[in-house]
Amino acid sequence: MDKGIAVKKEENFSEWYTELLEKAELADVRYGIKGFVVYREWAQISIEKMFRIYCDALDNYDHMPLCFPTLIPEKNFELESSHVEGFSPEVFWLEKEGDERFALRPTSETAFYQMYSLWIRSHRDLPYKRYQRGSVFRAEKTKTTRPFFRGREFHWIESHNGFESEKKAMKQVMEDMQITKEVLLQRFAIPHIFFERPQWDKFPGAVNTYAADALMGSGKVLQLPSTHYLGTNFSKPFNVKYQSKDGKEKYVHLTCYGPAISRIYGAMVALHSDNKGLRVPFELSPKQIVIIPIRFEKDKNVMKHAKKIERKLKKYSVFIDSREEYTPGYKFNEWELKGIPIRIEIGPKDIEKEQVVIMRRDTGEKETVRLEELSKYVKSIEKEFTENLKKQASTDFDKSIINAKTMQEIKEGIKNDKIVRINIKNMELESLKLAEEIDLLGGEIRGCRIDVKEKPFGKCVVSKEPATRVVYVAKSY
Amino acid sequence: MDKGIAVKKEENFSEWYTELLEKAELADVRYGIKGFVVYREWAQISIEKMFRIYCDALDNYDHMPLCFPTLIPEKNFELESSHVEGFSPEVFWLEKEGDERFALRPTSETAFYQMYSLWIRSHRDLPYKRYQRGSVFRAEKTKTTRPFFRGREFHWIESHNGFESEKKAMKQVMEDMQITKEVLLQRFAIPHIFFERPQWDKFPGAVNTYAADALMGSGKVLQLPSTHYLGTNFSKPFNVKYQSKDGKEKYVHLTCYGPAISRIYGAMVALHSDNKGLRVPFELSPKQIVIIPIRFEKDKNVMKHAKKIERKLKKYSVFIDSREEYTPGYKFNEWELKGIPIRIEIGPKDIEKEQVVIMRRDTGEKETVRLEELSKYVKSIEKEFTENLKKQASTDFDKSIINAKTMQEIKEGIKNDKIVRINIKNMELESLKLAEEIDLLGGEIRGCRIDVKEKPFGKCVVSKEPATRVVYVAKSY
Repeated sequence: MDKGIAVKKEENFSEWYTELLEKAELADVRYGIKGFVVYREWAQISIEKMFRIYCDALDNYDHMPLCFPTLIPEKNFELESSHVEGFSPEVFWLEKEGDERFALRPTSETAFYQMYSLWIRSHRDLPYKRYQRGSVFRAEKTKTTRPFFRGREFHWIESHNGFESEKKAMKQVMEDMQITKEVLLQRFAIPHIFFERPQWDKFPGAVNTYAADALMGSGKVLQLPSTHYLGTNFSKPFNVKYQSKDGKEKYVHLTCYGPAISRIYGAMVALHSDNKGLRVPFELSPKQIVIIPIRFEKDKNVMKHAKKIERKLKKYSVFIDSREEYTPGYKFNEWELKGIPIRIEIGPKDIEKEQVVIMRRDTGEKETVRLEELSKYVKSIEKEFTENLKKQASTDFDKSIINAKTMQEIKEGIKNDKIVRINIKNMELESLKLAEEIDLLGGEIRGCRIDVKEKPFGKCVVSKEPATRVVYVAKSY
Repeated sequence: MDKGIAVKKEENFSEWYTELLEKAELADVRYGIKGFVVYREWAQISIEKMFRIYCDALDNYDHMPLCFPTLIPEKNFELESSHVEGFSPEVFWLEKEGDERFALRPTSETAFYQMYSLWIRSHRDLPYKRYQRGSVFRAEKTKTTRPFFRGREFHWIESHNGFESEKKAMKQVMEDMQITKEVLLQRFAIPHIFFERPQWDKFPGAVNTYAADALMGSGKVLQLPSTHYLGTNFSKPFNVKYQSKDGKEKYVHLTCYGPAISRIYGAMVALHSDNKGLRVPFELSPKQIVIIPIRFEKDKNVMKHAKKIERKLKKYSVFIDSREEYTPGYKFNEWELKGIPIRIEIGPKDIEKEQVVIMRRDTGEKETVRLEELSKYVKSIEKEFTENLKKQASTDFDKSIINAKTMQEIKEGIKNDKIVRINIKNMELESLKLAEEIDLLGGEIRGCRIDVKEKPFGKCVVSKEPATRVVYVAKSY
């Protein structure tokens, strides 16, 4: 049957992913502009749910939404020098209107902070916690694009926050990690680790960058939300000041946090899906339950019972697939491909026995359930489903992390698609040397964990001197 | 006090609106690009709620969301000649990348239908009902911009739908009007009339355009959602075909519908707000209840009781304004300016008498309510609030509609900011002549009602011959 995925995830992740997006109708790459794709219904319904979950989480932590223009004047860009240097090569520019040149925003620091200088006045206005949802655009020249993972337009939330001091700003960085955990891990079932990136790999204009890496099925990691402590690097050129309690004018300490929802969607889909097709957490699936009536064309009783079940389960997103032109087997495959969490089969024999057959997409198990037990049983799957996806992904994640004490072990680890823990004397100096050495293998320095202080388990792998930090190395997207 | 609005709505609508947006902190016009403004928190929270309500309504009517790129290739634009002619002057173009030129979408027909030609195959795929939310961009050269009402970037939903026949497509047009009524009238309390526009005022590329006009406080109307029957005007150049039941290849009949949420927000705010400040429907207000504790600095009992009330009403968006640096009077004005539907005052004397004082923003009435009755009373306000806004707006709308039988009456009506009903023989011919004559007065032909067949009440005001249709004339934004 041509509906299924022909390539195995474990054999060729890249082709498997491409086929999954096409066959499950998640993205269409035929739009005609390089790096720009159409997100189809079955993806967009989930993406919209993810946006609502993420925005609600930010609201819960006292952020407020606002909405900036998509265009940024060129003169704003030029105010922070490393920012303009970092982003300029990737900017889409509009044809000039008179003397003015406008960019399609690649990120919105230089839009937000211009206005923050007008809005923030006193210590009473701080903390100032705001976010927006929208599109950003990056004309990446070298890397190959891949729908959701890496494109030239992506859909994200960016949060920009102002504080009185570095200490208060760093508390926000920690809060951002907490929000990431509550949403990414708990709701989207994506295990991840937050790393402090080396200075030479930070966000252009930041003092420090902290980024979440998730492990993809391919053994590569993907950078998901990152949060940045910007210090006063932007507040100085943009003149974002406040009057402190003792009446002094001071610069605001800024942080920014950017969960790219479309990218997280790609990561989530790649992580949980299998060779039968899509799998996403229960609450994110466009439809949660499909009822497949068997031999309903001949036995009118079947549709009657199917509709009864549909009504019984109406608090879920449930529907009956009563298309006559397809066999039950075809329908089974189609809805497994599309990742519907629960399939209910009901035929004349089941009605006689007052039962249904249930297939759950998390474990793949099929079970016969008595009609009177159905609601309870579905409720238990609802509870377990996302938890099961998370467990499976966490197990894979944990298994892929290994320790290495020698250059040989590091290289072998990278070749075998592992996340490699190593000992380093100084993350800036020695890591940079190492980075050059493993570059050809595709290995990258991901940084140090920030949530826990990790104790080195040997000497620095580069300098052979006593190590101070445990650094992670991995291939990445 | 400098917080209040200095200009009266009935005296100078335009300045009043500008002041409202600034003082209630809804929009900031200091962004630095003509026609591009920042939507501030107090507006954006409501706008996001409106998006969710509108998207949910479309989902209820079996539409599905998807998401197209913000850029459209120039060659797509060129496929439908009147469309390209109508929109080209307003397009923002990107600097060329090689030979290719891309537009920031002003609307997405030419993006959607290119893909519809790949996705729609058989009559089984129809009806095909899809929508997206996003930004669109129009470089309007001549008209003055005004935040939310008319800008160069706006935030909207556009729905594009495919059908087997004109008849089925026209049923969709009717359904779009029904959705508009359910959302705009019932949820946002905006009375409106759907008009069939004359041929010379239709959407570029449409067969027919049907648009909702709402009456603003100024006596001018504002075009809100419009829905268009496109016939096969786009499906032919974009090759959107389906195989019918009898095996023939046929062109798909298309319709599109575009509620501009940011514009609707502007209309809603302009419509309901008054000289004290903002008013929006109960469910759309960023905060629904504010509790103002009186003399709480001296009497600790007051905050204890305020918190008790807050807990009691926690199903609403409720908060206590316990800032010590402001007087109760200042707070009253501030939250009236920001349109919080219910204000609860509680002081030592109220505690003694087991009561609170309530001010409701719909009627402006102040009442003493016994504590034990509070929940019930708030619930009744929740029910009545939006209904009251709707009634007030409807009364104004109805009062402003007058009949005119002579050119003199028409001109007087326009001068007096009325919506003028007139009799016309042929909407295309005579209306066009009339349009020229009233142009200098700012009057415009808005079209004929489509929801009801209206019987002429006199002869054609232009030709003096028997009339066939009742046409509406008004000033517009």
